[in-house]
Amino acid sequence: MTRLCQFGAGRIGQIHAANVAGAGASLAYVVDVNAAAAAALAARHGARVADADSALADPSVDAVVIASSTDTHADLIERAARAGKAIFCEKPVDLSMERVERCVAAVRAAGVPVLMGFNRRFDPSFAALRRSIQAGAVGKVELVQITSRDPSPPPPEYVRVSGGLFRDMMIHDLDMARFLLGEEPAEVFATASCLVDPRIAAAGDVDTALVTLRTESGRLCQISNSRRAAYGYDQRIEVHGELGMLQAGNRVGTTVVASTAQGVVADKPLHFFLERYAEAYRAELAHFLDVVAGRAAPLVGIEDGRRALQLAEAANESLRLGRAVKA
Amino acid sequence: MTRLCQFGAGRIGQIHAANVAGAGASLAYVVDVNAAAAAALAARHGARVADADSALADPSVDAVVIASSTDTHADLIERAARAGKAIFCEKPVDLSMERVERCVAAVRAAGVPVLMGFNRRFDPSFAALRRSIQAGAVGKVELVQITSRDPSPPPPEYVRVSGGLFRDMMIHDLDMARFLLGEEPAEVFATASCLVDPRIAAAGDVDTALVTLRTESGRLCQISNSRRAAYGYDQRIEVHGELGMLQAGNRVGTTVVASTAQGVVADKPLHFFLERYAEAYRAELAHFLDVVAGRAAPLVGIEDGRRALQLAEAANESLRLGRAVKA
Amino acid sequence: MTRLCQFGAGRIGQIHAANVAGAGASLAYVVDVNAAAAAALAARHGARVADADSALADPSVDAVVIASSTDTHADLIERAARAGKAIFCEKPVDLSMERVERCVAAVRAAGVPVLMGFNRRFDPSFAALRRSIQAGAVGKVELVQITSRDPSPPPPEYVRVSGGLFRDMMIHDLDMARFLLGEEPAEVFATASCLVDPRIAAAGDVDTALVTLRTESGRLCQISNSRRAAYGYDQRIEVHGELGMLQAGNRVGTTVVASTAQGVVADKPLHFFLERYAEAYRAELAHFLDVVAGRAAPLVGIEDGRRALQLAEAANESLRLGRAVKA
Amino acid sequence: MTRLCQFGAGRIGQIHAANVAGAGASLAYVVDVNAAAAAALAARHGARVADADSALADPSVDAVVIASSTDTHADLIERAARAGKAIFCEKPVDLSMERVERCVAAVRAAGVPVLMGFNRRFDPSFAALRRSIQAGAVGKVELVQITSRDPSPPPPEYVRVSGGLFRDMMIHDLDMARFLLGEEPAEVFATASCLVDPRIAAAGDVDTALVTLRTESGRLCQISNSRRAAYGYDQRIEVHGELGMLQAGNRVGTTVVASTAQGVVADKPLHFFLERYAEAYRAELAHFLDVVAGRAAPLVGIEDGRRALQLAEAANESLRLGRAVKA
Repeated sequence: MTRLCQFGAGRIGQIHAANVAGAGASLAYVVDVNAAAAAALAARHGARVADADSALADPSVDAVVIASSTDTHADLIERAARAGKAIFCEKPVDLSMERVERCVAAVRAAGVPVLMGFNRRFDPSFAALRRSIQAGAVGKVELVQITSRDPSPPPPEYVRVSGGLFRDMMIHDLDMARFLLGEEPAEVFATASCLVDPRIAAAGDVDTALVTLRTESGRLCQISNSRRAAYGYDQRIEVHGELGMLQAGNRVGTTVVASTAQGVVADKPLHFFLERYAEAYRAELAHFLDVVAGRAAPLVGIEDGRRALQLAEAANESLRLGRAVKA
Repeated sequence: MTRLCQFGAGRIGQIHAANVAGAGASLAYVVDVNAAAAAALAARHGARVADADSALADPSVDAVVIASSTDTHADLIERAARAGKAIFCEKPVDLSMERVERCVAAVRAAGVPVLMGFNRRFDPSFAALRRSIQAGAVGKVELVQITSRDPSPPPPEYVRVSGGLFRDMMIHDLDMARFLLGEEPAEVFATASCLVDPRIAAAGDVDTALVTLRTESGRLCQISNSRRAAYGYDQRIEVHGELGMLQAGNRVGTTVVASTAQGVVADKPLHFFLERYAEAYRAELAHFLDVVAGRAAPLVGIEDGRRALQLAEAANESLRLGRAVKA
Repeated sequence: MTRLCQFGAGRIGQIHAANVAGAGASLAYVVDVNAAAAAALAARHGARVADADSALADPSVDAVVIASSTDTHADLIERAARAGKAIFCEKPVDLSMERVERCVAAVRAAGVPVLMGFNRRFDPSFAALRRSIQAGAVGKVELVQITSRDPSPPPPEYVRVSGGLFRDMMIHDLDMARFLLGEEPAEVFATASCLVDPRIAAAGDVDTALVTLRTESGRLCQISNSRRAAYGYDQRIEVHGELGMLQAGNRVGTTVVASTAQGVVADKPLHFFLERYAEAYRAELAHFLDVVAGRAAPLVGIEDGRRALQLAEAANESLRLGRAVKA
Repeated sequence: MTRLCQFGAGRIGQIHAANVAGAGASLAYVVDVNAAAAAALAARHGARVADADSALADPSVDAVVIASSTDTHADLIERAARAGKAIFCEKPVDLSMERVERCVAAVRAAGVPVLMGFNRRFDPSFAALRRSIQAGAVGKVELVQITSRDPSPPPPEYVRVSGGLFRDMMIHDLDMARFLLGEEPAEVFATASCLVDPRIAAAGDVDTALVTLRTESGRLCQISNSRRAAYGYDQRIEVHGELGMLQAGNRVGTTVVASTAQGVVADKPLHFFLERYAEAYRAELAHFLDVVAGRAAPLVGIEDGRRALQLAEAANESLRLGRAVKA
């Protein structure tokens, strides 16, 4: 039975821990600076609370799940890599490109597999979209349209340390664009505003953004982000090719539709990422266990994490310069 | 931790056993005449294989899950009731009304709670439909329309022992009608044909059926059943009231829509009950654990099982007589 | 240019007159007991007001459109037939079966073509449904489900002379059942209530009704009628066959969908028959002009009007007897 | 009765002429260099064929409809303005900004009303979208997303004289952006490719394009264009505001949905602009008659035509420079 050590006992950590149990693997250690959170999660899954060093030193631990705060990712990746553990790390590797590069080098030197937590690649609908593309359903891809809106903006204190909308939020969509375009983006143009919450502008960030990507051969991609959607988490993708269009839409909690004198009313999209991507998180963890067992290579690796960050930084640069930049 | 004994290690038994584990309860025993199936399921969940007597004799067992073949239900309900266990039993109690009556009496005498496995009441969309009705979304209910079609007919040998379409298949819809009409059906009219597979007629049954229900105050209900739907498991409900209509539709595996020169193509409904009602089975088991723990009364009891059977028998009689019958 | 005489200058008469003009034919005469209405409609389309006799005596008139009150239909059909005019008549021929039979005989004797105004056969979606069936899209038809609900009940004084729900309202659905089943209904069962307006019961009628049809070979059909739908005119059909299902739904005025914190809200169905079947009325009149010009035989004739009335009367009888009746 | 002279007897001219008749106005003259086309259209509507001079000299002509080729628009506008006629002109005024300016000046000098043929503003769904915005359904507008794809590319010879994708095709979407944003675009960024047909590149144009607009206060807009959509004419709009989202989608010929083993298949969007915007053309012509009669001011004037062209030219400049430009 695969044994894992998990860093981070917060909201997303609890999801991963439950999926570890549900997938028939064993959570051996929980590591978190918040001792109470670590103890509670460990108790629920029959794991032990430990510090990073002793957990990584246990040779019976096969793999680590890194779900702690962003500023600890790179360090933990390097330590786990040196300890020879397979690694599943939430995005991003780090907010600094230079730090990411060192991390990539450390991982390569250690030769351990790394799965980056771009969970949306494991969403059943988005994964089916990609399979349809690969099966030729719409022929050559020409244009990808990605809409990604959070239900409500994060608190300003989070915005301040988030790395900014492009690196914190749109990085998922930039990865999705790479997943679906079939070619590497070569040029990035960004425009953005602060329309939702002036405190976000005060924190030096934007809350509404449009990015346009262009590949070498001329394939195009539009990404639309907002920190607010009054109707819930809005996650939609459209792919146009020579033979037609593929769309993947939002998911709802129930199929109930009420028709009254007021109109025909359906359910809102599932509220936020924990609900919307519950199946994706399950599939992602199951894939990681396949990686740990040597049954699969990571579907999305640390190089993908680096590339998505590069594109986010290019978007920042484009926004500053008011022109398209190479990426 | 609640400890359960489960009878039946087949397809639906495996679903319940996994839900027991996922809900934080413990499967103590698995009982099945198929020793290999019992052993496999017991091993997967850390349970022991046992015979009915010894499992029911264990005072640490709080409750039983009866997922064995229909002809064993009534006997196991009575034995579990005498042993003082809380009971969750798949529908039907029995195919004979007289046998059901004795079973109801035994349960009453023992004073144990019984939850009948009318899983559809726990489907998120159908449950939301009922909540909307109760919240007055469409005012007084006037008409309910239930469509229920299996993807493909069962083998003739199953049909022969099934009790016939009304008691085997439509019984779920008859329970759903009671769940949504807000009044007891008082009159039943049935018409039916064998259009799908002549071997079903040879086995003395029908495969396509329409039933009309009428309550004392005149509320109406239509149920439409077929043993075949080329596009998958078709489970839809429509409720009309003075203020409007509520609909609950099929669920799909992905939201992908492909628009090409051939048309605009969406996913088919989830194929059959294991997929369609996965969430319902989870919610049903969680509710049963609440019942066992004394936190809730059964949302659907053995009397509901009896009443649904009565309606199915009335449908059979109406079909024989060619007229509406009291029910 | 085809010249027509129209009887009836009311709401539906105005629709037909406008379609006559739009289709490139000429309205020669308008006949109506309401002189003001006749004058207004005649003025709008350059026609003359006349009485029936002189209009029918004009040899330059090729055809008549009968859109006057129901009690005048049979008489006008017979007079127009004797005058050798092609006839387009709103349903029903008459409320009395015996009167209808005489009318059919008169039409046969005269040898003139008659198109009965079962407008729904000309609805683009329902017509496409039928073409799909005929093209084999779902194989052999097994079951037809028809939902037909008016937005709000007629005044009690209309109900009193209407002939009752089955002959006044469901007659359209009974014709539609024949249009789609591919076989003649052989058995009818009806149940009904007065749930919407007690004045309808006081007028001796029902306002909510379910009818079940069965053909000789066992094909089934359900029809669901109500005199009220808070969300607008509800006109939906579902056809099930061995290879799948065909559905034709309601039409909306706009495709606008509003997603807010309150839900995802789409437009209600078009409010009533004038809006919902505007295209059907246009296509029906164009077809009549083809009939007049000898380019087509009537797609729905006086015999279809008689047969629909027979089925409506069978429904009345079934309701009285509480059992299925032959039809 | 309003009397009109129409320039152009081609495809769109035939639509307008039929709508003139349907709206109760009279087509007095048809002018077209193609004598046969002019004669046919005139015959159908009881009009006379004439040359421009004599038609404009007739004082009984109230207004002109200009549906001739683009290179004749500016000249005809000026001549009709000098003759004091109300003017309805298909877009664009001209492909040259300088020529447009002169035309605007001539119209102002003459003081005649001009309605520019931005037909999409009259589409029932897009018009309802705008009314919803104005009614505050989504609060302050933040982002508009416009998808506009033709079913198939025009022939290269047309491309060569079309003025290019931005002035020929996207000009409609640029006007729509202005219609919905509630603020004037201040900045334009364009990127584009030739992915559909290499002959379009050979003709110096692109066939796939993305444009991003930004208003002074930071509202954003994305426009996505392609000269090809295998599934038909794709015309969709999405408006995001602080309180939610409004969407207006494609229209279909029938509501038929076929569910079979192959999937759930709905109709494709209406094929091209003549079908998709049939209602819009009708409403547009009716509005023009209101303008001619002095009952309304033009909802979209020659200044709107000039502004849309400015934005199209800005898109061209942005594409050339690879950066956002002021507009």
